[in-house]
Amino acid sequence: MTKVTELRVLIGTDGGLTVELTPFLDRELPESLYSQLYHWIKKEIEEGRLLPGMKMPSIRQLTAHLKVSRNTVEAAYQQLQLEGYLESVPKSGIWVAEIEKPLPHPIEVEQPIILECKPSSEVLVDFEYGNVDLDKFPLRQWKKCLSEAVDQENNWLFQYSEKQGEFALRREISNYLLQFRGVRAAPEQILITAGTQNSIALICRLLALRGKSVAMEEPGYSGARSVFGDQGCYIEPVPLEKDGLSVEHIQTSKVKAVYLTPSHQFPFGMILSISKRIQLLKWAYQTGGYIIEDDYDGEFRYQGQPIPSLKSLDEEEKVIYLGTFSKSFLPSVRLSYIVIPPSLMDQYLRKFAAYNQSVSPIIQRAMALFMQSGEFERHIRRMRRLYQRKHQALLRNIEQYMGNRVKIVGEKSGLHILLKLKGISTFELIENGLQKGVKVYSPLMFWLNPNPESNSYIMLGFGGLSIEEIDKGVRLLASCLP
Amino acid sequence: MTKVTELRVLIGTDGGLTVELTPFLDRELPESLYSQLYHWIKKEIEEGRLLPGMKMPSIRQLTAHLKVSRNTVEAAYQQLQLEGYLESVPKSGIWVAEIEKPLPHPIEVEQPIILECKPSSEVLVDFEYGNVDLDKFPLRQWKKCLSEAVDQENNWLFQYSEKQGEFALRREISNYLLQFRGVRAAPEQILITAGTQNSIALICRLLALRGKSVAMEEPGYSGARSVFGDQGCYIEPVPLEKDGLSVEHIQTSKVKAVYLTPSHQFPFGMILSISKRIQLLKWAYQTGGYIIEDDYDGEFRYQGQPIPSLKSLDEEEKVIYLGTFSKSFLPSVRLSYIVIPPSLMDQYLRKFAAYNQSVSPIIQRAMALFMQSGEFERHIRRMRRLYQRKHQALLRNIEQYMGNRVKIVGEKSGLHILLKLKGISTFELIENGLQKGVKVYSPLMFWLNPNPESNSYIMLGFGGLSIEEIDKGVRLLASCLP
Repeated sequence: MTKVTELRVLIGTDGGLTVELTPFLDRELPESLYSQLYHWIKKEIEEGRLLPGMKMPSIRQLTAHLKVSRNTVEAAYQQLQLEGYLESVPKSGIWVAEIEKPLPHPIEVEQPIILECKPSSEVLVDFEYGNVDLDKFPLRQWKKCLSEAVDQENNWLFQYSEKQGEFALRREISNYLLQFRGVRAAPEQILITAGTQNSIALICRLLALRGKSVAMEEPGYSGARSVFGDQGCYIEPVPLEKDGLSVEHIQTSKVKAVYLTPSHQFPFGMILSISKRIQLLKWAYQTGGYIIEDDYDGEFRYQGQPIPSLKSLDEEEKVIYLGTFSKSFLPSVRLSYIVIPPSLMDQYLRKFAAYNQSVSPIIQRAMALFMQSGEFERHIRRMRRLYQRKHQALLRNIEQYMGNRVKIVGEKSGLHILLKLKGISTFELIENGLQKGVKVYSPLMFWLNPNPESNSYIMLGFGGLSIEEIDKGVRLLASCLP
Repeated sequence: MTKVTELRVLIGTDGGLTVELTPFLDRELPESLYSQLYHWIKKEIEEGRLLPGMKMPSIRQLTAHLKVSRNTVEAAYQQLQLEGYLESVPKSGIWVAEIEKPLPHPIEVEQPIILECKPSSEVLVDFEYGNVDLDKFPLRQWKKCLSEAVDQENNWLFQYSEKQGEFALRREISNYLLQFRGVRAAPEQILITAGTQNSIALICRLLALRGKSVAMEEPGYSGARSVFGDQGCYIEPVPLEKDGLSVEHIQTSKVKAVYLTPSHQFPFGMILSISKRIQLLKWAYQTGGYIIEDDYDGEFRYQGQPIPSLKSLDEEEKVIYLGTFSKSFLPSVRLSYIVIPPSLMDQYLRKFAAYNQSVSPIIQRAMALFMQSGEFERHIRRMRRLYQRKHQALLRNIEQYMGNRVKIVGEKSGLHILLKLKGISTFELIENGLQKGVKVYSPLMFWLNPNPESNSYIMLGFGGLSIEEIDKGVRLLASCLP
């Protein structure tokens, strides 16, 4: 995606050696400029064209040289610092750091290649997004289901799974969707996948989206954007408004499909208003476009009336519904699903006749048993209460320790919130936080085209933290604010 | 892929109503003509354009009308008969059968959509390929590993897996490959995938093969061909010789990559000679092409000296090695892996940075424990002896009951063989077999371009059958031969 044109070393203004970087950045790519720059510099370092001890151009210099926004450079530098590729030396500048060679000679070394983020001090509280609660998890029952699954009359163990996934699981999901999400889907319409990214890749082929434009919320889930890009789609970023993405923008665009997170916009957290849901469905009916509804954490809603899923409002089979067990159960089951409109089933059966199911039927059957036993429903209800308590604690602590030095964004549901910062940049706070042992994250990667504002948020995931950790973490973080 | 142009009903020569079919068949597609015709007719029936009781054109009529080979039409008709879409009435012709509606109204009906093949009588012995042995499987130990995996210090349960897969499993695979397949691969080069089709899709993107030509054995593994096609590759079918695919053909072609099964050609079973292996590697070194080695059942070899894998001979990092646990362990773990040459790791890390691992770490860690305990190695050795006995029994029975009425093809290794038929077509034998309660299969789908000869083989998978079943099955089948 990025081409190296040249790399020269010249005398910097400070008399020291300063590297001049000339990466090729392509604004056409779905990959953001920040990410392209980040990857390009990382590659230069890993392949030894940028050597430890070389001084990097200042953010100002590089911003001017590349004619990109300051955020782009700042974001790339900060990411590289967090990963240990660059070192910032106060009053001196940013330098290329010593790194482990990315590819050790076969057999010899044994650390995984992917370099771990190296915090400057021990991490006491990690607000990473995506983790779920450990303590209240019904581990014993889940283990029971795993071994019961294998105990079942088990010829299936010695064969491939049904192509669409184990029927028992699809039936349970069908019941679950009707009860919890108001979605009517026959087991025959449900397709089990090994994660939402696989769901999206499959939908790209099902709807023949290669070379077509797909609308996405800006900012939106970057994991989805990458897949659309890799499948040959053009991304149309759609600005967000208080009540969700701008449907007007979609109506005036030429997109063939819209991917969105209506129940809990990722990462901003707003909920798509009912009127916009209706407008969006109208758009689909009139243009023949498709709506890809990613309901990644719809189970966890704490305030206000639940709004019906787009799928439950869909009368002309234009909504493709994506669900996952990563938030509602365990990321480690790697279990997601698609609800395919009946009118597309025929296409699906034709295009994917030669494909095997990717998810182990062992996991599928264990999950089906877990749902049949009623444990899953109990688990969801238990977790909703638990996450609500954590969520309230988080909001209370922020209110208490940070007051009006920050603004909370998207506080009605889900397992994360955003903080809008004042008088400090995202990366300053990340750095300072690490010094104090609290790890927080930038949502910058979720923008296709970051703007100055993109660099004034931090993202706090709380699913995996205890009430005490949340309190401690917020207090530590508050002490880093101006 | 296939377009309906028109469909007319006209008076057939026999005075009855005969449907005239005018499908659009595209010789450019990776999908074989037989498969295109099969899917097109199936769609016509499912969508009610071909109605139960309509008479189909005779094989001769349709062959002439479409200007395709008789095998193409025969194969499509036979497949549709096996699936219950068409009925052959002796002395009358082939008719559209009554079928269940493919898409029942949501919630109402509960059978999976994909129509099961309906044998004319009960199946006593099924020579399906892909099943493995049930009786000798160490189920107790595997269950132990599953629950031990979950018992391990289990924070990982509440997180996503490492992107490349769990390190513990990659380390075990690394050791296993060195010991059993002579392949030196650091855990850092190994990537866990949810099945070989996922491995191939990933490689297409890693090598940027979209729009490029990829060579495949003709016949070859159709599951791989579909993926290459769907990823936008052009398939270059390479004829087979006694000692494997024609390297000469590849040298004179413009392909960017070769996908092949050198240890045990699928489905013909020959082994790529050492001299051809060297030539193929030379081709890759000289042209910069890549070799994708699918070693799907390399563990099970019964006669002659083992030949080193292409990967173990590769000195310039041009071989990408694909392995799987589907044959050596269980199809239901849905666990495969890729060995990526160090020179491509950087590309991989860049292109797939945004992707999550698809295989549940529960399965990965259970497999790692199973391998650590030595159980996997014992299992392989036990299975090799067991499959060798089954394999010998199969050959002996064929010799005894069929004598020179058939010819055995590819008898040195693996979990299946082919029989070359004399005086009876594949589909006649399949039909007659079903009447007697023995189910055998056509390898026709493995040809991109079937030829008259393609329709004179049947495929016998024996992995999942007992010695007794094999004996009974061969005897029943022999009674169907002329």
